[in-house]
Amino acid sequence: MRPWEEFARPDVEREGRCGVAEVVFCPGKTPEQIAAIMRALRQKTEPVLATRATPEQAQAVKALLPEVIYHEHARVLTLGAPKEPKGGTVLVVTAGTSDIPIAEEAVVTAQYLGNRTERLYDVGVAGVHRLLAHRERLNAAKILIVVAGMDGVLPSVVAGLVEKPVIAVPTSVGYGVSFGGLSALLTMLNSCAPGVAVVNIDNGFGAAVLATKINRL
Amino acid sequence: MRPWEEFARPDVEREGRCGVAEVVFCPGKTPEQIAAIMRALRQKTEPVLATRATPEQAQAVKALLPEVIYHEHARVLTLGAPKEPKGGTVLVVTAGTSDIPIAEEAVVTAQYLGNRTERLYDVGVAGVHRLLAHRERLNAAKILIVVAGMDGVLPSVVAGLVEKPVIAVPTSVGYGVSFGGLSALLTMLNSCAPGVAVVNIDNGFGAAVLATKINRL
Amino acid sequence: MRPWEEFARPDVEREGRCGVAEVVFCPGKTPEQIAAIMRALRQKTEPVLATRATPEQAQAVKALLPEVIYHEHARVLTLGAPKEPKGGTVLVVTAGTSDIPIAEEAVVTAQYLGNRTERLYDVGVAGVHRLLAHRERLNAAKILIVVAGMDGVLPSVVAGLVEKPVIAVPTSVGYGVSFGGLSALLTMLNSCAPGVAVVNIDNGFGAAVLATKINRL
Amino acid sequence: MRPWEEFARPDVEREGRCGVAEVVFCPGKTPEQIAAIMRALRQKTEPVLATRATPEQAQAVKALLPEVIYHEHARVLTLGAPKEPKGGTVLVVTAGTSDIPIAEEAVVTAQYLGNRTERLYDVGVAGVHRLLAHRERLNAAKILIVVAGMDGVLPSVVAGLVEKPVIAVPTSVGYGVSFGGLSALLTMLNSCAPGVAVVNIDNGFGAAVLATKINRL
Amino acid sequence: MRPWEEFARPDVEREGRCGVAEVVFCPGKTPEQIAAIMRALRQKTEPVLATRATPEQAQAVKALLPEVIYHEHARVLTLGAPKEPKGGTVLVVTAGTSDIPIAEEAVVTAQYLGNRTERLYDVGVAGVHRLLAHRERLNAAKILIVVAGMDGVLPSVVAGLVEKPVIAVPTSVGYGVSFGGLSALLTMLNSCAPGVAVVNIDNGFGAAVLATKINRL
Amino acid sequence: MRPWEEFARPDVEREGRCGVAEVVFCPGKTPEQIAAIMRALRQKTEPVLATRATPEQAQAVKALLPEVIYHEHARVLTLGAPKEPKGGTVLVVTAGTSDIPIAEEAVVTAQYLGNRTERLYDVGVAGVHRLLAHRERLNAAKILIVVAGMDGVLPSVVAGLVEKPVIAVPTSVGYGVSFGGLSALLTMLNSCAPGVAVVNIDNGFGAAVLATKINRL
Amino acid sequence: MRPWEEFARPDVEREGRCGVAEVVFCPGKTPEQIAAIMRALRQKTEPVLATRATPEQAQAVKALLPEVIYHEHARVLTLGAPKEPKGGTVLVVTAGTSDIPIAEEAVVTAQYLGNRTERLYDVGVAGVHRLLAHRERLNAAKILIVVAGMDGVLPSVVAGLVEKPVIAVPTSVGYGVSFGGLSALLTMLNSCAPGVAVVNIDNGFGAAVLATKINRL
Amino acid sequence: MRPWEEFARPDVEREGRCGVAEVVFCPGKTPEQIAAIMRALRQKTEPVLATRATPEQAQAVKALLPEVIYHEHARVLTLGAPKEPKGGTVLVVTAGTSDIPIAEEAVVTAQYLGNRTERLYDVGVAGVHRLLAHRERLNAAKILIVVAGMDGVLPSVVAGLVEKPVIAVPTSVGYGVSFGGLSALLTMLNSCAPGVAVVNIDNGFGAAVLATKINRL
Repeated sequence: MRPWEEFARPDVEREGRCGVAEVVFCPGKTPEQIAAIMRALRQKTEPVLATRATPEQAQAVKALLPEVIYHEHARVLTLGAPKEPKGGTVLVVTAGTSDIPIAEEAVVTAQYLGNRTERLYDVGVAGVHRLLAHRERLNAAKILIVVAGMDGVLPSVVAGLVEKPVIAVPTSVGYGVSFGGLSALLTMLNSCAPGVAVVNIDNGFGAAVLATKINRL
Repeated sequence: MRPWEEFARPDVEREGRCGVAEVVFCPGKTPEQIAAIMRALRQKTEPVLATRATPEQAQAVKALLPEVIYHEHARVLTLGAPKEPKGGTVLVVTAGTSDIPIAEEAVVTAQYLGNRTERLYDVGVAGVHRLLAHRERLNAAKILIVVAGMDGVLPSVVAGLVEKPVIAVPTSVGYGVSFGGLSALLTMLNSCAPGVAVVNIDNGFGAAVLATKINRL
Repeated sequence: MRPWEEFARPDVEREGRCGVAEVVFCPGKTPEQIAAIMRALRQKTEPVLATRATPEQAQAVKALLPEVIYHEHARVLTLGAPKEPKGGTVLVVTAGTSDIPIAEEAVVTAQYLGNRTERLYDVGVAGVHRLLAHRERLNAAKILIVVAGMDGVLPSVVAGLVEKPVIAVPTSVGYGVSFGGLSALLTMLNSCAPGVAVVNIDNGFGAAVLATKINRL
Repeated sequence: MRPWEEFARPDVEREGRCGVAEVVFCPGKTPEQIAAIMRALRQKTEPVLATRATPEQAQAVKALLPEVIYHEHARVLTLGAPKEPKGGTVLVVTAGTSDIPIAEEAVVTAQYLGNRTERLYDVGVAGVHRLLAHRERLNAAKILIVVAGMDGVLPSVVAGLVEKPVIAVPTSVGYGVSFGGLSALLTMLNSCAPGVAVVNIDNGFGAAVLATKINRL
Repeated sequence: MRPWEEFARPDVEREGRCGVAEVVFCPGKTPEQIAAIMRALRQKTEPVLATRATPEQAQAVKALLPEVIYHEHARVLTLGAPKEPKGGTVLVVTAGTSDIPIAEEAVVTAQYLGNRTERLYDVGVAGVHRLLAHRERLNAAKILIVVAGMDGVLPSVVAGLVEKPVIAVPTSVGYGVSFGGLSALLTMLNSCAPGVAVVNIDNGFGAAVLATKINRL
Repeated sequence: MRPWEEFARPDVEREGRCGVAEVVFCPGKTPEQIAAIMRALRQKTEPVLATRATPEQAQAVKALLPEVIYHEHARVLTLGAPKEPKGGTVLVVTAGTSDIPIAEEAVVTAQYLGNRTERLYDVGVAGVHRLLAHRERLNAAKILIVVAGMDGVLPSVVAGLVEKPVIAVPTSVGYGVSFGGLSALLTMLNSCAPGVAVVNIDNGFGAAVLATKINRL
Repeated sequence: MRPWEEFARPDVEREGRCGVAEVVFCPGKTPEQIAAIMRALRQKTEPVLATRATPEQAQAVKALLPEVIYHEHARVLTLGAPKEPKGGTVLVVTAGTSDIPIAEEAVVTAQYLGNRTERLYDVGVAGVHRLLAHRERLNAAKILIVVAGMDGVLPSVVAGLVEKPVIAVPTSVGYGVSFGGLSALLTMLNSCAPGVAVVNIDNGFGAAVLATKINRL
Repeated sequence: MRPWEEFARPDVEREGRCGVAEVVFCPGKTPEQIAAIMRALRQKTEPVLATRATPEQAQAVKALLPEVIYHEHARVLTLGAPKEPKGGTVLVVTAGTSDIPIAEEAVVTAQYLGNRTERLYDVGVAGVHRLLAHRERLNAAKILIVVAGMDGVLPSVVAGLVEKPVIAVPTSVGYGVSFGGLSALLTMLNSCAPGVAVVNIDNGFGAAVLATKINRL
């Protein structure tokens, strides 16, 4: 039995089958487990990603696997070079400053999976002119990932302005009845601007995978 | 004992104490009860309002109390003349066509309680230009009542455009995770544009009372 | 004032701005309102769609606007010819027989918005071989819309088999703790197969708009 | 690019547009970010506020921006002098002692935004005579902000006693089925005394902004 | 086998064991089942009660068991005479007119179980003077049953005025976030006036049984 | 294409694979669909079952497929003879009379799938002696299906009395905070008597399938 | 102004009005505030209680007010002697060992408010014989306080065995779908044994106040 | 009185009555209480188990009761030898690596209660081939315990592949709308593959007890 098999069966065929290789979800795993799975995946795949790594996990994994890079704001570990960028630009937009860590998870993931990316941060609708001032950049993107907490209003407004697919990412930013992102999620699912794709709360990674699948068509 | 006392104690002093007279909430009351309470209130107050009256209730109350007027879209019964309009304009805005019944409840209530009112309907943010085209009217109002179901996004955007108080009314319009207006309510309470006043789902009446209290200051 | 303006402001520019024209949501609207808005939109757009029309609404709208076609299973009204099909195939998959009305809403919408569509119905995972037997068709599609109620498991399994984007539509089919589709929705948002796009419960229409936006890239 | 632009786009026009300048929400921001945004806003606005600052954040921001004042009970940082007070008195009322931090957030915000304020604390309805004893002060205020946790009953009772607008702030004080303030919020939204304006749980800041907008009319 | 045994095992010993005989809950039972169980219980117990009987059920049961009396407002069927009244007075109080059916269920149950009862209806706190005007009656009662929907505020205020036990009954009266009585229930459980006994939503019957058990001590 | 294939793919191999043949879930299906699927399944399987059939559906299916039998209390349609009974007795227990329809769904399903069954109805814990009086029958059964609504207490008490597996079925019987069976479900999942198997609300069918799988081991 | 008045208005008349003096709820208060309020109340009342005191709070309050006693298991501080015991016995029962802290809060509160108390701990229904073995003690008590977490089943079973009033206290003991005591609370409110009085989760104090009010009748 | 009786009444007869001896639930108990109860149970039973023991609790209990063994991954303490294995194999399956602690609780409990066990970990449906590759092992087991967090999809797919009973254990692994395991629980209860037995979130212990009861039939 290979050493990692008692706790994990890395899905080394996933890239061929699903287009995107398996990615390690760090919470609840020991640094030894993370490093072992990353190493196993690296034999068939480049790059290998691990998401939601705390600084402590990152440091411990690097001690075991020194070629790993830690993208601190995004809390992502990478092993190997990013794929060659193909397709159009993925524009990552946030409503506020506090949504940036989730947006960065999307940016780093999208970059390593072979997308051109751009950032447009802190353009929430409390001042809708901030958004309208960037209408050209919004229209120039091929795919938009829109990240927002609290009222989760931004994706509805963006989707009313552009022709391209909008991927909405609710974040757990907020307090009181934001209910850890649930309110933003509901807003996005109820969006009166049709055709918004929604992913789980704080799931910048999932948004980037979806964008990648669309970008490669 | 006066005839209505076994089932109701109309608060005939409320107008003096709270500025707005007691209003009859029709659901769960018989036409006889509604007519008796309206008649009792009318001895000290003009006008008397009754909200959420179905067409059947309205017809039966009119048979008992012919001077009553039924405002069909608003589902409001009135007895006596509206108060003289005072103060600035209350602008009632809706996101969609389906929100109009709740908006009309607010309009009729506000008019009878002595406010000037205007309507601006179907300007939801799926096409934000529809809203921006009316920026002058938004700024000309003294108080704005903004009515929206589904994603409940409109009050946040309006509150980011004007100086005046915005009263947000979530409606039960929607399906799936609109949860009967709960999603719109949460959006409004989480609004990233501060200073939005929120009332219960479908509570056009309560919004109008609040607007009246503000308008009289 | 044009006749519909007091209750609606059809967003006739939406097709130019967002790529997909405004579509009428029938619940809570009178046949007169539906017909008036469809006629107004038809002056700038072809085809015009109206979703969630009951048979009664459909019949009444046809009396006012005889050139309308009613797609009964999909509960969709159309006015004018479908757009010329472009791009790849959109494959609409259901877990069960009861999910078909929502799937048909997606199929009809996608067809009229200019997509080639195929159907693959009743392949839920209680018998996973039913799904695996169609692996080639799954891989041949450009975009997959996967519709499921109850446990909402099917999109996760499909997304683990294909490279293409999967749009998951939870339905309100079920009883007890299906909670009107909420359980299926949560399953899809939590999908361990990353990159699944989720829309509101029973929102076949929204899934088709999203598929159209992706298909046109 | 100005130094803060990669993470924030301070809305320096907001005071002109909405009447109240942008305020910094501290959770999830580094002291460097807070100080940079406050400094940027200060160029166009006086005073600048930052809410929900922990003592640690406050200390670190002061090290970077020594002219900042920390209002400890209210957890608010201010930069620059309060506006000249105008309009009537804003009376801030609490049901209990534990609601005071939220009430203080409202008081400090209201003062710096240019309102006269008074406090009336710990007058919950478990002993309604405590409240009735202050009826004159309640009636003398122009706007009332009523802060309550647990059962959230106080705003209903106050709104039944006065003519003036009541802004209700639910707090997260309580245990068991207080559900972090949700029970108090629901009580306030369901208030049988009509015309109560409700804001998010623990949102003393939002209540003060709303009071300011009303006070300036 | 006795005829009712295949569908029911009437607990004829319950009065001896628990002090209050078994009572029939009508929803979901056929008139034949209701009549058969009432007849079986009547052999050991007097009176026999059946709650939540619709007018249709009541009429059908009377056809089978003519000596039954239907208390229409309370939706209670009784068979046999009330018990001799013992102990102090149970005062049943409501916040509004719409809460009366639940209050009547409590009154009729309490009377037949051998309590003196009084009614005090429509004294909700939107006009707290209506309640304070009856302070003597409140203090004269031995046990108070307080029935309220919407915000559910009344029991908290009453419990702050009297020494005697208060039993709070939330009702499903309301709309929007009253959530079918859940909001009123939470208010009562969170009551800042300690020592309030709470029962299920709309459970006037349960409140009367509890009052009876206390009254007999 | 066989006639039913456009709307259904009956899983005729399921009996071989999973031990229990596919069963038709009637809600949302037309009588024509039900009859067609039953006929298709009958070619490989005996008996064929269809659950949750309303009397109207049953009558219409019988018109198309006269050899079908309708088990009215259980709302189950059967086609073909029950399997030969094997294994021990499955005892179906209910807390109340109103839980019987769900219990009967379990009984009929279990009988047709080849189990010996017994019934023990209306032995809820409000009178625990009713249950204890049947202790021998409880211990004589091989598998127990315990059906309860409202507080859902009965399975916990039964599981504390017997060695055999207990399958708990929550029902939607109740009102107020029974929340359509959710409260009973939570009680059963939290049971302090370990080893209770729980199924969905009102899922008598699922309980019988589980009992059958256990009984055949 | 007396020194505590800026943060608290102790309700020194409450004992005369409501029968039970005000009690201090410690969470969110500083030791200085707790000691000041206890001292103020002590001038009119004996004893004074403060609940939910952590060991740290207790130690700090004792440093300020050395005559205070800390009841560690119950987390209650007392100042002054218990009232003379009157009336019958209050029996406090728990389902498990982990429910004891809440039960002790009830016991200490009841003792200091002048009740005779007894304890019967760890008699949950997973072994119903443990409970039945104590049937005489259950019947000998005048009032029963029954404390249970997880499935919350015990009060239903106890109320089916005795004539006396049962006060049910749900606790937050459990995991998974115990939802912090919500499941136990719902069980108790839905109890099929009528006449159970329910209080908030973990509210041993409230149960003791209610028992005291009943015991003094 | 025996020393543990004031806080616990170990149910030493439970093994005879229910087939499985009482097991200690460690949260909220002191090491002294755990050790005392284990010692009391050990006089009639072998082995004695204690679940959910933290490493700190385990160490402290071992200091008091040195013959105890701590199973670290499973967080289970055992005292005495496992029972002789009887019956068929219990196969414990997990969807991911993070679900292993709950699976290990099931494995250790099942082993000590006298079952043969096997493990099959990390075969979630994101790569359904990982599962299908083990079809023979799935079919060889007598009972399957399937452990999954996030979308909770695995038990539905497994139950569609095998004849044997499947016990589904939702875990709290996940983020966002996994809601601490609630989403996985709902998926399992709604499983379209009938006959799945569900237990509480993270309740590996309960699954093992149920498996034991089935295995002994």
